[in-house]
Amino acid sequence: MTEHFCERLRRRLDERGPLCAGIDPSPAALAHWGLADSAQGAAEFALRYLDALAETVAVMKPNVAFFEQYGAAGMAALEQFVAAARDAGVLTILDAKRADIGSTNAAYARAWLDPSASLAGDALTVTPYLGVEALKPFFAAAAATGRGVFVVVRSSNPEGRGLQQAVEADGRSVEASLLDALARHPDGPGAVVGLIAGAAPLPLPEGICYLAPGLDSQGAGLDDLAAQFGGVAAPVAVNLSRALAGAGPRRGALVDAAARAQERIAGGLRPRRG
Amino acid sequence: MTEHFCERLRRRLDERGPLCAGIDPSPAALAHWGLADSAQGAAEFALRYLDALAETVAVMKPNVAFFEQYGAAGMAALEQFVAAARDAGVLTILDAKRADIGSTNAAYARAWLDPSASLAGDALTVTPYLGVEALKPFFAAAAATGRGVFVVVRSSNPEGRGLQQAVEADGRSVEASLLDALARHPDGPGAVVGLIAGAAPLPLPEGICYLAPGLDSQGAGLDDLAAQFGGVAAPVAVNLSRALAGAGPRRGALVDAAARAQERIAGGLRPRRG
Repeated sequence: MTEHFCERLRRRLDERGPLCAGIDPSPAALAHWGLADSAQGAAEFALRYLDALAETVAVMKPNVAFFEQYGAAGMAALEQFVAAARDAGVLTILDAKRADIGSTNAAYARAWLDPSASLAGDALTVTPYLGVEALKPFFAAAAATGRGVFVVVRSSNPEGRGLQQAVEADGRSVEASLLDALARHPDGPGAVVGLIAGAAPLPLPEGICYLAPGLDSQGAGLDDLAAQFGGVAAPVAVNLSRALAGAGPRRGALVDAAARAQERIAGGLRPRRG
Repeated sequence: MTEHFCERLRRRLDERGPLCAGIDPSPAALAHWGLADSAQGAAEFALRYLDALAETVAVMKPNVAFFEQYGAAGMAALEQFVAAARDAGVLTILDAKRADIGSTNAAYARAWLDPSASLAGDALTVTPYLGVEALKPFFAAAAATGRGVFVVVRSSNPEGRGLQQAVEADGRSVEASLLDALARHPDGPGAVVGLIAGAAPLPLPEGICYLAPGLDSQGAGLDDLAAQFGGVAAPVAVNLSRALAGAGPRRGALVDAAARAQERIAGGLRPRRG
């Protein structure tokens, strides 16, 4: 029987620590690393993360936009990274934020979650504006092969608050209602729950896994991480992108920055004293 | 000064009629046309639409998922279509439903709206779950070059109703609040307002343009089109995908089906008698 993605993720996080290494080959990051603002530059950037961190980090998250900005050539660069990551045995979450109506989602699921697809990582991020029920083709494709789907529930940016806290017909907020739907879903999809400076933590159901972006960006810090995820039993992968890119491009500096981040994040995730 | 996309769209719709030809090279559509389930098949499918309809249809909407399902090779097929459509002078709306936080949206905007990008059509669809304010990089990039951005406000599938009708802090629904934000935005983005069988029409502000998917799919018909858009002064492009694909692959049959659709849709858009 295929092992569920959240269990695979938990095992890796337990072994290696909670850091998810975000790979964002933005023009600024490429310039800082002395790489070309091109698909080749983005491929080189991503492959250097793999070379430096594949043995010590549980999971890596390439942000698809920073590959797609170079068109089909950029997507070919992402394919190159995905293949290399598979060979290296590191888990990958492809941060694509895809979603449409159900029949179209079947095509996106084929692109990102079919075992034979050139872009198939271990997990994919999707968005729920067209309804969580419309995401079924993603959940089904992922569950069939032990892959994961992370649905954006709470994003790490303040601009999403109004919509994500709107109240549905049953009196619950959009984000609370979504989390509940994910926790009750038989395929056990995961949730993106971002860190927002000073925001009230979202009550988290168990039985699913979490991806937490937003640490150190837009003001959210270790206190916000601790308030949202401290002592949570579910697997939580905490993403850092800019802090790692800023430490590069030297391999040793990247390795050290990741090790420090593991320690720091693990501290934030410890159960808090009452 | 650059002409605003909604004005370009209005001019074309007035000249040619309200049909937006949706291009969905799904496995079923490719099989019906005797084409391979491959990037090459998808390119051929899209180029045949262009050959048949570039002189009589105002706007075409390739659904990006059905290209992306073939990975980077599929995106290269989409680039081929985009270049050919630009040469043919037909407007294109690239239906990608992209969106993320603002800094990531800058990269997506570069991919789809920068004049030098290989994937730059005339307009792009985006989704608002991460907040309409986070979409600014799309609006700015589009407005700078007379391109358009259509924000999904109401999707054509029933699964989106709960979230899209949730009530925000000011007492308005998510969809009403979004439409208002778009109508007040200085860059004048457009809105996707889908047709849903029997749904109460959404009050539409003027000053923006509309893309209406959902006709003839999941039960929505001409009555629903008339109820939502009958007599509206704003430009409205009404999408049909499966009905056209079903009429193909013969060029003449595709031309006839599009001409019939123009008549039928124009009838649905006429002001209704009181």
